[in-house]
Amino acid sequence: MTTAPPNPSALVVDLYELTMTQAYHLNGIDGRATFDLFVRRLPAGRNFLLVAGLATVLEHLERMQFSASDLEYLDSLGEFRTDFLELLEHLRFSGDVEAMPEGTVAFAGEPILRVTAPIIEAQLLETVIMNQVHLQTLIASKAARVVLAADGRGLVDFGLRRTHGTESGLFGARASRIAGFNATSNVEAGERFGIPVTGTMAHSWVQALDDEMEAFRSFVEVYPETVLLVDTYDTMRGVARVIALAEELGGSFKVRAIRLDSGDLIALAVAARERLDAAGLERIQIFASGNLDEYGVQKLVGSGAPIDAFGVGTRLGTSEDAPNLDIVYKLAQLDDRPLLKLSTDKATLPGVKQVWREKDEHGVAVRDTVGLVDDDLPGRPLLVPVMGGGRRLSGGDDSLDAARERAADELHRLPAAMCCLDTSIEPYPVTVSNRLRALRDQLASKA
Amino acid sequence: MTTAPPNPSALVVDLYELTMTQAYHLNGIDGRATFDLFVRRLPAGRNFLLVAGLATVLEHLERMQFSASDLEYLDSLGEFRTDFLELLEHLRFSGDVEAMPEGTVAFAGEPILRVTAPIIEAQLLETVIMNQVHLQTLIASKAARVVLAADGRGLVDFGLRRTHGTESGLFGARASRIAGFNATSNVEAGERFGIPVTGTMAHSWVQALDDEMEAFRSFVEVYPETVLLVDTYDTMRGVARVIALAEELGGSFKVRAIRLDSGDLIALAVAARERLDAAGLERIQIFASGNLDEYGVQKLVGSGAPIDAFGVGTRLGTSEDAPNLDIVYKLAQLDDRPLLKLSTDKATLPGVKQVWREKDEHGVAVRDTVGLVDDDLPGRPLLVPVMGGGRRLSGGDDSLDAARERAADELHRLPAAMCCLDTSIEPYPVTVSNRLRALRDQLASKA
Repeated sequence: MTTAPPNPSALVVDLYELTMTQAYHLNGIDGRATFDLFVRRLPAGRNFLLVAGLATVLEHLERMQFSASDLEYLDSLGEFRTDFLELLEHLRFSGDVEAMPEGTVAFAGEPILRVTAPIIEAQLLETVIMNQVHLQTLIASKAARVVLAADGRGLVDFGLRRTHGTESGLFGARASRIAGFNATSNVEAGERFGIPVTGTMAHSWVQALDDEMEAFRSFVEVYPETVLLVDTYDTMRGVARVIALAEELGGSFKVRAIRLDSGDLIALAVAARERLDAAGLERIQIFASGNLDEYGVQKLVGSGAPIDAFGVGTRLGTSEDAPNLDIVYKLAQLDDRPLLKLSTDKATLPGVKQVWREKDEHGVAVRDTVGLVDDDLPGRPLLVPVMGGGRRLSGGDDSLDAARERAADELHRLPAAMCCLDTSIEPYPVTVSNRLRALRDQLASKA
Repeated sequence: MTTAPPNPSALVVDLYELTMTQAYHLNGIDGRATFDLFVRRLPAGRNFLLVAGLATVLEHLERMQFSASDLEYLDSLGEFRTDFLELLEHLRFSGDVEAMPEGTVAFAGEPILRVTAPIIEAQLLETVIMNQVHLQTLIASKAARVVLAADGRGLVDFGLRRTHGTESGLFGARASRIAGFNATSNVEAGERFGIPVTGTMAHSWVQALDDEMEAFRSFVEVYPETVLLVDTYDTMRGVARVIALAEELGGSFKVRAIRLDSGDLIALAVAARERLDAAGLERIQIFASGNLDEYGVQKLVGSGAPIDAFGVGTRLGTSEDAPNLDIVYKLAQLDDRPLLKLSTDKATLPGVKQVWREKDEHGVAVRDTVGLVDDDLPGRPLLVPVMGGGRRLSGGDDSLDAARERAADELHRLPAAMCCLDTSIEPYPVTVSNRLRALRDQLASKA
């Protein structure tokens, strides 16, 4: 098992990172820089973020190096000097990283990861750090909403076929697992991350056999405890055939569930449940899929439809209602000099920062404060050291299971209003410390 | 240069493809199957699709094989018999593929790719074929709209930092290049696909230097023909500093353009153009970026703002307004037996099919017909043989440049109404041939 990106290329950069770093090099700018990764604004449809992707980033940082063919390509562009290409050849990430552990709940404006390294290293890694934390935090945040809507029912990730590439499918499975999903259909994700994999049959199986009854019978011969897909031709006729097969097989009938994948899922689940129960098949579960997201799941759960588990695919795997986050990676300090930018609607906070979270007497989160790292503020600091001198720090449990448990705990400690799907609520309070605000105002007045 | 997926794992499958194929194997179902890949419905906001991703799929099909560690993992699941794992060990794709060449315009309901192979092979590759054609067609279709809106102005892909993973950034760059983009900031895409790469500086460069004037001066020393980013603190003050630098450097000032990345881009472009022209810097171009998509570009172009080129990132790279397509891969024939499914709202067309496109006397596409492959219908057949017996067929030019030229030609031949961003127009007419309709009705009545 590994959390490495399937694409460890050092060329996963925007060209300007290379042109800038060459210019840093030629201008002798080699100070230690601190960059903050944060989401400027939450998308409509999100009350919070669930942080994920850190393990993937750290693996990339540990492994990143330019290969001979990378350097040959860069040389061919005619923009880079030999001494800079030699610098790249020997470049390894030697910096420090502090971050919110995977599975932490975060809000807009809060640094979720902070890199401190020689400016060339920190700058070169901008795009890959953004890209990987963005993907997994995006999907984990969407998946967390589905988990809240499912209210304890089973959830399986079905996203792979329509995610944006296979890497997105792989890390989307990982992110939804962190958020609380039970399993994935994605076999690669099972192999890489140890996530339980599940899946049974598609419509093509039913079509390929001479008739539906024969399709069910022969599949059950191979997989006695399977889930049968009943909607290829007519759902209730499919259910009747499952019942007929149970009668035919008697005690050796061990099918676990039927799957509904189209039509009016509420009405079909109710009707199927009645027919199954009437046939003494109370123990057969009903699994539903087909264009589901947190709203679809909430509607099915709220209706009381007798559905035991959901397969959630495309709308989760592409975060359909909010397919990107306004994530940025901004220079906040160079050596002892705190820095900011003032671009319209895109201003940043200067200095090396920390985020503190205060809880009430029931352990429920009530307020976050973004402050300077040497501020003395109440609450628990959320950014913890995860990498020092380019090496991951042993310390907390950074396994996928630990992230999943952390996420469950964090969701449990969110204010109740944050846990509903409604996003018209009052946003969670995130304030800026007095000292940080004073520093920002002082620098802004001088720019 | 290669079009191979960065992730060639044979485990990029949904588990049910493996369980089904084992069941085919054990039941002696080994006929030749034909599967169709098509998009059921266009998303709101799209009048047409621009097909891309074929080259990537064909490379995957040629290379796909299960590794020893893949098989070891599958064995560990306890669901697969030794003889089936041995079958997988030796499995290579031996089938035929017909497809619309990359850069072809397609519509809902039209097979854009058809696989004919032993059913085990065709079934196992379902997910990876869907995933790769989905991603590239999704982004190419979005990018085509941006290209139409830009009306000849330059376009650069800036998507990588917020695409869904690095693979999505890589193939998104490829797809937008097919659609007509001029360049990308994505260095890996430059190396892999030969796409021109471009990029200059970020705000961090300006912040890292002592002041903006010094930042411009020292960057231009390294890159005399660069593009200067002017909005870090105050855009018009940044423009004034560019002009001051031009005066300071005289004849050696060769800066190509300034970049605006925030604020009111129309007003700032007009004001910057005036200031630059008044200083005799008419040849300096204005480049705009910041949350652009086809609507933003159209608005800027329509305003007459003096902007020469656009950087388009997140909203393109995640296809923000339509982040997925309703793409499916459906069994249509097994040996001589045409097949269909009737699931509510998800019914399919049976048999081995072709798509014909008719044009009017000006070469403009006027109607498509989906028919049986042996139908005799007017127009040009769009699906062409691209792979036979598991090997790519040499034939047409399948280079990226050829796909780009094809796309330009296809967009040129679309009915004028299809080329506007407005999607409330009458859909392009796609009909089903009489023989195909008769076959469907006949099979539906027997199901």
